[in-house]
Amino acid sequence: MSAPLQNDLLLRALLRQPTPRTPVWMMRQAGRYLPEYRATRAKAGSFLQLCMNPELACEVTLQPLDRYRLDAAILFSDILTVPHAMNVGLSFETGEGPKIARPVRTSADIDRLPIPDPEGELRYVMDAVRTIRRELKGRVPLIGFAGSPWTVGTYMVEGGGSRNFEHIKGMLYGAPQELHRLLDIITRATIAYLNGQIAAGAQAVMVFDTWGGALTPRDYREFSLRYMQRIVDGVTREADGRRVPVILYTKGGGDWLDHMAATGCDALGVDWMTDLADARRKVQDKVALQGNLDPSVLYAPPARIREQVGKVLASYGQGPGHVFNLGHGIHPEVKPEHALAMIEAVHELSPQYHEERDRGRG
Amino acid sequence: MSAPLQNDLLLRALLRQPTPRTPVWMMRQAGRYLPEYRATRAKAGSFLQLCMNPELACEVTLQPLDRYRLDAAILFSDILTVPHAMNVGLSFETGEGPKIARPVRTSADIDRLPIPDPEGELRYVMDAVRTIRRELKGRVPLIGFAGSPWTVGTYMVEGGGSRNFEHIKGMLYGAPQELHRLLDIITRATIAYLNGQIAAGAQAVMVFDTWGGALTPRDYREFSLRYMQRIVDGVTREADGRRVPVILYTKGGGDWLDHMAATGCDALGVDWMTDLADARRKVQDKVALQGNLDPSVLYAPPARIREQVGKVLASYGQGPGHVFNLGHGIHPEVKPEHALAMIEAVHELSPQYHEERDRGRG
Repeated sequence: MSAPLQNDLLLRALLRQPTPRTPVWMMRQAGRYLPEYRATRAKAGSFLQLCMNPELACEVTLQPLDRYRLDAAILFSDILTVPHAMNVGLSFETGEGPKIARPVRTSADIDRLPIPDPEGELRYVMDAVRTIRRELKGRVPLIGFAGSPWTVGTYMVEGGGSRNFEHIKGMLYGAPQELHRLLDIITRATIAYLNGQIAAGAQAVMVFDTWGGALTPRDYREFSLRYMQRIVDGVTREADGRRVPVILYTKGGGDWLDHMAATGCDALGVDWMTDLADARRKVQDKVALQGNLDPSVLYAPPARIREQVGKVLASYGQGPGHVFNLGHGIHPEVKPEHALAMIEAVHELSPQYHEERDRGRG
Repeated sequence: MSAPLQNDLLLRALLRQPTPRTPVWMMRQAGRYLPEYRATRAKAGSFLQLCMNPELACEVTLQPLDRYRLDAAILFSDILTVPHAMNVGLSFETGEGPKIARPVRTSADIDRLPIPDPEGELRYVMDAVRTIRRELKGRVPLIGFAGSPWTVGTYMVEGGGSRNFEHIKGMLYGAPQELHRLLDIITRATIAYLNGQIAAGAQAVMVFDTWGGALTPRDYREFSLRYMQRIVDGVTREADGRRVPVILYTKGGGDWLDHMAATGCDALGVDWMTDLADARRKVQDKVALQGNLDPSVLYAPPARIREQVGKVLASYGQGPGHVFNLGHGIHPEVKPEHALAMIEAVHELSPQYHEERDRGRG
């Protein structure tokens, strides 16, 4: 498990330490846009079975690394493994997204929720982390992750994806104390889950707050950020003698980056609706920034992709603390060679933004 | 057609003139949450047939005014009437949203697009405006509207609703000049269309940019705001000896309110992800602000709705220039009495934010 790390660009950039170029990875880099992923998924059966099979989860996690010069692996899993382990009856209908058979809507529903043991019901995730770390052989660091309590809560209360968040907003405005009780349980489960991943070998962790951007600024702080703060405070920040960086990402949260930075996290994921120069000003270089190419740029021809990569790099500007990424997960229809064009452009265009004296290293 | 206007609170607030209380209306106030709307729609047949029947469009426009103490009527129509008149083959599938049979994706597709005559192919809309004005008998002003060129363009290029904007973003990044050509045509059609509505009797107009928030800040200015600027410059600003206020609304555009205000529009619609106090600071009281209760607040019990209305009013604070509204259209599942609770709360709670000397009027 502890082969020495050969490429630590990601970990250094997340801590705003100098690097000779900007590291790059992609949210959902192990995914449907890759034919080899689709083949493994077919072999696994369902999406959930793929998540629950450590060997196959490891296989798809490594696929994009064999194809591209990426600087990180991210655990192949789903943010709904935690509610799945809470017995809410999770399934994924093809083309329809997640369904939860027993949505959590009443006080009694909340009372019934257990805090899953990471090495119990969620052992398959920990086994996947261990398997991936072993198979990575120190090529790049492994990122673990979880959904934010608010985002996981929306699925649990709505019973699946939602456009208007009828039930959870009804609870938020009508019975806020019940919602706080639910979010507290999810938060405790998430801290245990992320700490399990770190103990199993995750070298950085990211919290995905996909739906925080659907809240008012006040509600965001009360119902989403407050619980991410507890996660930042509660996760193990060192493993194998190295700091484990924590990345927070709220889609649509550009306005609130300063509040997010104040949690004490190491880095923020930024979506493409915010300019990185503005984001950097807003967080006053207190945290690293990860992002933020519009994932839809990858629909364009490679020459155009290269131009847009150049704009994102220029927007962040000079100095350490930038991890190149998309502003959201890669779209399933993207051609693999378009992702290649993006990654190669980062390798070629980013060294100019880093100091000469660092170029020898890494 | 020109019965004297009995309640001009909306028009005065949109121009930041003093009013004794905050005027209120709701985006999609004529809609599926009302049983009387559903009855008229059933009578009309399809949604599109309802839009195209001036008598029935008038009937549903007036329904919410008979039920609630609203300060404006808004034309019952759809932002896709313009592409419909451009022969792209629009239809609305039940529960699936708009479909466009002949999406606009090539240079030849763009060449083929006509600029519809407001009193020709779009005469049914102008007739609806005239009918509504007549039937309103001056109770409240009538708001006309159109989609923003970027938003209308996304439907035309994607062929319907879209999550990832694959085709239009491919065009934006791969063939931006073609996209500009398309947006120019839509803009010219939209200016003619809005001027037709104003000539027919619309007393204020609103431009809905539902999808501008899916763009990067730079692309927003180049592909959405630039064309809304042309609309602001091109629409008739006076009718019946009164200024016709122009309202711009970009969902997810909270970060760009200053740029939007600089177009010379009179007012900005604000979604619920931005605090009105921040929005007001950002636009430095150059324009009025319309919004911004989270539409999902209406899922909560009436007492909670009243509290949240109070927070929105307090957030805008003292003085003229606020039009109360939801931050987006009312959801179809909302109970009519919950909308009532919101409207009554604005009537009761807003006078304290306006100067004593105005209380006598209006």
